[in-house]
Amino acid sequence: MPAEKRQLNLNLFIYPGGHHEAGWRYKDSAPERVLDIAYYQELAKKAEASKFDALFFADGPALADNIRYASRFRLEPLTWISALAAVTERIGFIATASTTYNEPYNLARLFASVDHLSGGRAGWNIVTTGDASAALNFGFDRHPTHADRYERASEFVDVVTKLWDSWEDAALIADRQSGIFADTDKIHPINHIGKYHRVKGPLTLPRSPQGRPVYVQAGSSQDGRSFASRYAEAIFTAHQTLGNAQEFYADIKARVKSVGRNPDHVKVLPGISPFIGSTEAEARALHDEFNELTQPEYSLHQLRRIVDADLSSYDLDGPFPRELIRIEGERGASSRFHVVLDIIERENPTIRQLLHRLAGARGHWVQAGTPEQITDKIQEWFDNGAADGFNIMPPYLQGGFDIFAEEVVPLLRKRGLFRHDYDGATLRDHFGLPRPENTFSRPHRLSHLRIGHSTSKRYANT
Amino acid sequence: MPAEKRQLNLNLFIYPGGHHEAGWRYKDSAPERVLDIAYYQELAKKAEASKFDALFFADGPALADNIRYASRFRLEPLTWISALAAVTERIGFIATASTTYNEPYNLARLFASVDHLSGGRAGWNIVTTGDASAALNFGFDRHPTHADRYERASEFVDVVTKLWDSWEDAALIADRQSGIFADTDKIHPINHIGKYHRVKGPLTLPRSPQGRPVYVQAGSSQDGRSFASRYAEAIFTAHQTLGNAQEFYADIKARVKSVGRNPDHVKVLPGISPFIGSTEAEARALHDEFNELTQPEYSLHQLRRIVDADLSSYDLDGPFPRELIRIEGERGASSRFHVVLDIIERENPTIRQLLHRLAGARGHWVQAGTPEQITDKIQEWFDNGAADGFNIMPPYLQGGFDIFAEEVVPLLRKRGLFRHDYDGATLRDHFGLPRPENTFSRPHRLSHLRIGHSTSKRYANT
Repeated sequence: MPAEKRQLNLNLFIYPGGHHEAGWRYKDSAPERVLDIAYYQELAKKAEASKFDALFFADGPALADNIRYASRFRLEPLTWISALAAVTERIGFIATASTTYNEPYNLARLFASVDHLSGGRAGWNIVTTGDASAALNFGFDRHPTHADRYERASEFVDVVTKLWDSWEDAALIADRQSGIFADTDKIHPINHIGKYHRVKGPLTLPRSPQGRPVYVQAGSSQDGRSFASRYAEAIFTAHQTLGNAQEFYADIKARVKSVGRNPDHVKVLPGISPFIGSTEAEARALHDEFNELTQPEYSLHQLRRIVDADLSSYDLDGPFPRELIRIEGERGASSRFHVVLDIIERENPTIRQLLHRLAGARGHWVQAGTPEQITDKIQEWFDNGAADGFNIMPPYLQGGFDIFAEEVVPLLRKRGLFRHDYDGATLRDHFGLPRPENTFSRPHRLSHLRIGHSTSKRYANT
Repeated sequence: MPAEKRQLNLNLFIYPGGHHEAGWRYKDSAPERVLDIAYYQELAKKAEASKFDALFFADGPALADNIRYASRFRLEPLTWISALAAVTERIGFIATASTTYNEPYNLARLFASVDHLSGGRAGWNIVTTGDASAALNFGFDRHPTHADRYERASEFVDVVTKLWDSWEDAALIADRQSGIFADTDKIHPINHIGKYHRVKGPLTLPRSPQGRPVYVQAGSSQDGRSFASRYAEAIFTAHQTLGNAQEFYADIKARVKSVGRNPDHVKVLPGISPFIGSTEAEARALHDEFNELTQPEYSLHQLRRIVDADLSSYDLDGPFPRELIRIEGERGASSRFHVVLDIIERENPTIRQLLHRLAGARGHWVQAGTPEQITDKIQEWFDNGAADGFNIMPPYLQGGFDIFAEEVVPLLRKRGLFRHDYDGATLRDHFGLPRPENTFSRPHRLSHLRIGHSTSKRYANT
């Protein structure tokens, strides 16, 4: 039997109205179902029938300020994925949650619970929250700086990692005869005392099937890359060109290696938003049809959030006024800013052209083509050190996913790039990631995890 | 057609190993399934088949310190009920969550999401958390006092109520033609600035099917009763005698009336833990069998938590040393303390007798009898101003619920006391509660809700 060929990992990124900003207006979309759990249950079952690795869910703890023109809200991801896990058996669920606007003890409980109730299918997309308005929903005077948020995030991940390890695997006994329900020698307070958090522990429930959720990360700033190299097991990233994606891929894998981790255990997954037609012309026409549905007031607002410049008084069909853009300084979506800057410098677009470029998937890679062409592009990135897989971002739902599942997935399979069926039961199995050892089960050697503030003294049972 | 007879409301209170502290050791229990979501899905479907109003879930953000001898942990309730809502259609779900150890914005999002994904079946058991050790999981130096917790709880409920109203019902439009997704004139910041919370809002998602979850409350202290009279739509309470239950029922209904609310819209639901046999002797033997399985080390520990006295050096079969009990002062479970004090004064038990009295359901009403006898007791309380319904607390699961569903429910129906089928779709429908008006939709008159800190000025859109 030949050695198994390296396989793609594919997530379906659920955006309620579809990823194109005008996707909800497309005739085959279903904006009236954005709050209907059955709609998402259908999608989850379809993605599972296509043997996708996971569904991916974005989140932010503040309402978008441009909800007037676009489908920009969603259910709360942890409760949402619990209701989807209940009607599926194998597909994973990656939920975004903020380290800036959650208490680690509460978030640890939520994710442990989801990992239990899904039988080990939970992933956590770790974000520090880019939207500064969130601060005002949590009694903060202002949104913490990028550096502060990442510093807090590191400590946060340290705390929840210890909480998820606070019950050793063998702690739950439930032996009727002896009357021992739990072996309390195997349940440990974590006694964390750090700069941002003081958490005693242990967690309220036993270690979960995967040990802990798969750690996913999506920031591509320098802080983000550094964070990802230490913690992430999968990275969701936005690139517009093979070259940029290769640079990012090589940089991340090198950073991961440099901290002593296995680069194969960090999956790099760019986003791709595919417009699929039976001919290239048909695909382009479809893309154009979506762009016709965009609303400049909305698009300009979105652009302003990324580049921090108001273009509403400019001619949309005139050249983009590059002099308005401030390069230096703090910004929320810093990695996305550089994607936009790169488009401007490479393509020299009019304002409208830039708006249409970004309307597809908020800076992610938009491709219009035949199923063969989309498959070729995916394979090109996969075979040339740019991706281990992709987050698929359909421009509209459900049809935008259906056509990918029906037309592209079979081609990927024919080329031996994607599974015909699941091999394992957990998200870690799908991603080929090991189940982490429990730090408390290994008292005699140092943790391989570089988590701050951990000392064996603090691990002592008190 | 005759006027419809007043109907019981029945909740099934899910305690993973059953409510009797040794229930998990009983031969027909399933302690190996306490983390198996399918186990709870089976229970939810059974309770729905019996047309129960809701399942009820306790919670606390700290691990119980006596997990060695008893099944004292559980999944996180909001994710848990999401996975149960997905496989049921009508039954409600009441999840406990703390106002002391949550951020109102996060909790508002979680419950709104559950109410959406369940189609309007969410209830919130509002607690301030009695277990002082929770403080150490959240960076607090100490657990806030009872009075401080209730003060924070009032403000917290005020905040989340406004968040749940922050989208008017008609705010979501999703009109493809005009391109208007949401009517932002109907989405309001709440601009709350209080003693404990500063929250700008609006919430991240539209108003939920029930407007907000049903507000449930369980404290019976003076602070608890005062809080309940202002906010609660259902009250879960513990009483050992008809007289005490009547006193509580009358007091609550009078308090509710005095603040201008309709007493019929506040359901008083005592707990009952039934041991059911085909003869009274058989039921008593079953109860004895459970008590034989108790472990004094655990039972004494539980008792110490309530009465704050260490009895481990006393003869279990000697009289209860009443002089050890301190009556005055602050305590976590103050309402439960008075239940225990009352048992001691009425029954003058030995220590072991008291432990067995409390082993059944932590101070709730334990009844052993035939289905007829249990039905008689329920009807006696229901007909005599002591209860609008009950939280059913099976001593073990699943059999302890099955026998209630098969033997007692049909008798209640025969007597015209309990529904043959659901009339409505939401938990509010089952409880006969109105869907609350949205405070933001009524700018020209004062809210009937007595929520603190609300001024029309703060409601202004900014």
